[in-house]
Amino acid sequence: MRADFLLRNAGELLTLACGPVPRTGAAMRDLGSVPGGAVAAHHGSIVAVGRERDVVATVELDDDATVVDAKGVLVTPGLIDSHTHAVFARTREREFAMRVEGRSYEEIAESGGGIRSSVRAFREASEDELLEVGRSTLTRMLSYGTTTAEIKSGYGLSTESELKALRVIGKLGEEHAVRVVPTFLGAHEFPDEWRDNRDGYVDHIIEEMIPAVSAAGLARFCDVFCEKGVFSVEQSRRVLEAARAAGMEPKLHADELHPFGAAELAGELRARSADHLVCVSDDGVRALAAAGVTAVLLPGTTLSLGKSAYAPARKLIEEGVPVALATDCNPGSSMTESMQIIMSLASMALRMTPAEALAAATVNAAWACGTEDVVGMLEVGKAADLVVWEVDDHRAIPYHYGVNLVRKVVAGGVVVRDRDETLVV
Amino acid sequence: MRADFLLRNAGELLTLACGPVPRTGAAMRDLGSVPGGAVAAHHGSIVAVGRERDVVATVELDDDATVVDAKGVLVTPGLIDSHTHAVFARTREREFAMRVEGRSYEEIAESGGGIRSSVRAFREASEDELLEVGRSTLTRMLSYGTTTAEIKSGYGLSTESELKALRVIGKLGEEHAVRVVPTFLGAHEFPDEWRDNRDGYVDHIIEEMIPAVSAAGLARFCDVFCEKGVFSVEQSRRVLEAARAAGMEPKLHADELHPFGAAELAGELRARSADHLVCVSDDGVRALAAAGVTAVLLPGTTLSLGKSAYAPARKLIEEGVPVALATDCNPGSSMTESMQIIMSLASMALRMTPAEALAAATVNAAWACGTEDVVGMLEVGKAADLVVWEVDDHRAIPYHYGVNLVRKVVAGGVVVRDRDETLVV
Repeated sequence: MRADFLLRNAGELLTLACGPVPRTGAAMRDLGSVPGGAVAAHHGSIVAVGRERDVVATVELDDDATVVDAKGVLVTPGLIDSHTHAVFARTREREFAMRVEGRSYEEIAESGGGIRSSVRAFREASEDELLEVGRSTLTRMLSYGTTTAEIKSGYGLSTESELKALRVIGKLGEEHAVRVVPTFLGAHEFPDEWRDNRDGYVDHIIEEMIPAVSAAGLARFCDVFCEKGVFSVEQSRRVLEAARAAGMEPKLHADELHPFGAAELAGELRARSADHLVCVSDDGVRALAAAGVTAVLLPGTTLSLGKSAYAPARKLIEEGVPVALATDCNPGSSMTESMQIIMSLASMALRMTPAEALAAATVNAAWACGTEDVVGMLEVGKAADLVVWEVDDHRAIPYHYGVNLVRKVVAGGVVVRDRDETLVV
Repeated sequence: MRADFLLRNAGELLTLACGPVPRTGAAMRDLGSVPGGAVAAHHGSIVAVGRERDVVATVELDDDATVVDAKGVLVTPGLIDSHTHAVFARTREREFAMRVEGRSYEEIAESGGGIRSSVRAFREASEDELLEVGRSTLTRMLSYGTTTAEIKSGYGLSTESELKALRVIGKLGEEHAVRVVPTFLGAHEFPDEWRDNRDGYVDHIIEEMIPAVSAAGLARFCDVFCEKGVFSVEQSRRVLEAARAAGMEPKLHADELHPFGAAELAGELRARSADHLVCVSDDGVRALAAAGVTAVLLPGTTLSLGKSAYAPARKLIEEGVPVALATDCNPGSSMTESMQIIMSLASMALRMTPAEALAAATVNAAWACGTEDVVGMLEVGKAADLVVWEVDDHRAIPYHYGVNLVRKVVAGGVVVRDRDETLVV
């Protein structure tokens, strides 16, 4: 077997390739550990993985192969960020400061803040401007270990602007080392021009946007912000059923602010994921478990909004719901590109063990954004997307918080990030 | 006026040099903003600061001067970490995972964890081993923008090992670009050999350790862990009065876990700072305000320990207590070197505005560790310790969380950190 890439001398290689996908319950703690591991790849795909001597015996290494010496540290699959709004026109730090000062949502909106300010700026921005912001966001994600990211539209809220968003997301996927999964989120909010005719906007999404997005083949998933004051359960059901009929799999922003029946809807629709879930009801948890819907938890958003009640991660895991983690990277409520701080919050605030947090940021996140055939585990046939850490124990990732513990990042068998900062002292 | 260093083209220069030190109440929001600012220095000290045209007109730049173009972004004083335990023998991620799993403090201690495990490892470690860990910790601090750090002893808990700690701390201060303030914390915990004779250990600190530390001139401050189950108010008073008599200024770990009267003692002793204060009583807050004791808040510790009740920052500020921030960098309860994540937590969890958080991480932190004559503000005569950020608005520092927004770090007029990661893509 030929190989053009070899990573060797991992102190511990965590393959995550050790059971059915997605991982639930106690299986979330199985990390598929191989001490002294190695990974060989050819043309970006893994051709051998396991103990170094077995891998080396299996492959015939090209003369000009890339060989990475992990020097005895921890190696894991690349991290997967399964819920982001990473294509936006501008950041909103002014509004963040107003929120800290106790200004109300209404005051912030009146002063030109809130999601409507993101929509205004987005509609005015050119594709090139959006591409530039998106590139910079993805490049920072990569440097913190993320090799796959789901990105949602949803700041356009018109057919033209939503298509612009999805074209930018698609272009980023083509040109950037981070693998990108596009999600259509026309039902993110009601735009001003439809504010007095909400069902009319839902009809518009169903009759015009979904067919246009589907015809252009620009989205794998369709998401809806199903929440009190935004899209009702009935409106969400209509959008997601139409999207599924047009070839897009359903996802939901569910029960973030109120127990609203959104998780129950996710179960009914057998959605790929229900995300946020801070206020999910017990019935909602059971519905997710029964239907095998993945809970994508976003603890950075809870922290960033200054709230103290987090999603019930332990209850979800105990009830058998597969749990994934994501940054929710967006300018309004969670401005971060780092899955590492999310894993720290998962252990510190959601009480997920470091092993559960890692499974939730790799194999289960791959499932949550429909990329489980390609990434999230290190096994033959999967992509050679790897993180070489500065530490030798996966428990150090959530423990050693607020800093970047990534040493090298490999995407498709190519070293795309190699931290080599200029150290004057 | 000659200059061998010039930083020019700051979009906004925040000098923090705009009022009495430490900063209290509404004055914590004054950042001394200079649009289009510049800073000139000679032999490490600022010789001119203000609008670029004025600075340039004032100084005569050496031919081989270092000139840094800030390219229109935000420039602030170097960050100051006023409470750390950054010299330790090893990390404790295993124990972190046990705590997440709900194991009790007793179970963790029985399995070889807890502060006693740090003490055992510390006593066994050589000065060279400790120096290596300390260097790596300080170097990471520097890359996240910290140019001054207080470091406590307190993992030795014997005269010999406490002196070893303070020698290592002193050596780090001599050799590293981060300025180091040494604090003696022999009263961090009761070591095993004194566990049945606690007053005897207090006598030992007073009669043997303090004289030895004082004779060697190794500590600027003396700190005590004044807390239920650790050092009583009376024991703390005895230690701190003896330390003051020997030339060390008092600091306290105060009311972290219970309202214990430690803040009241800090007020009585006119300590330099009272730190933690999660459970401080109303009387304690008034005592701090009346005596002008600085409250050093450590929100990373609260998060890292999985707790949801944070120190009452708003009440402290409203009552006129000067507030500083710090990482509490230590292997047991707060493993981070980044003051940026602490500033994020200050805004998100303590409800401090971004401006208050910046003042608390610069000018007030300088005061909290007794370095206000040298650092914390950008004015003539102070050290040229600067951070050049990636952002142009200070509100972005807490807002854009979990990542490193530092572009360049200048310590004493020397560029000691210049982020220039190898970007393959």
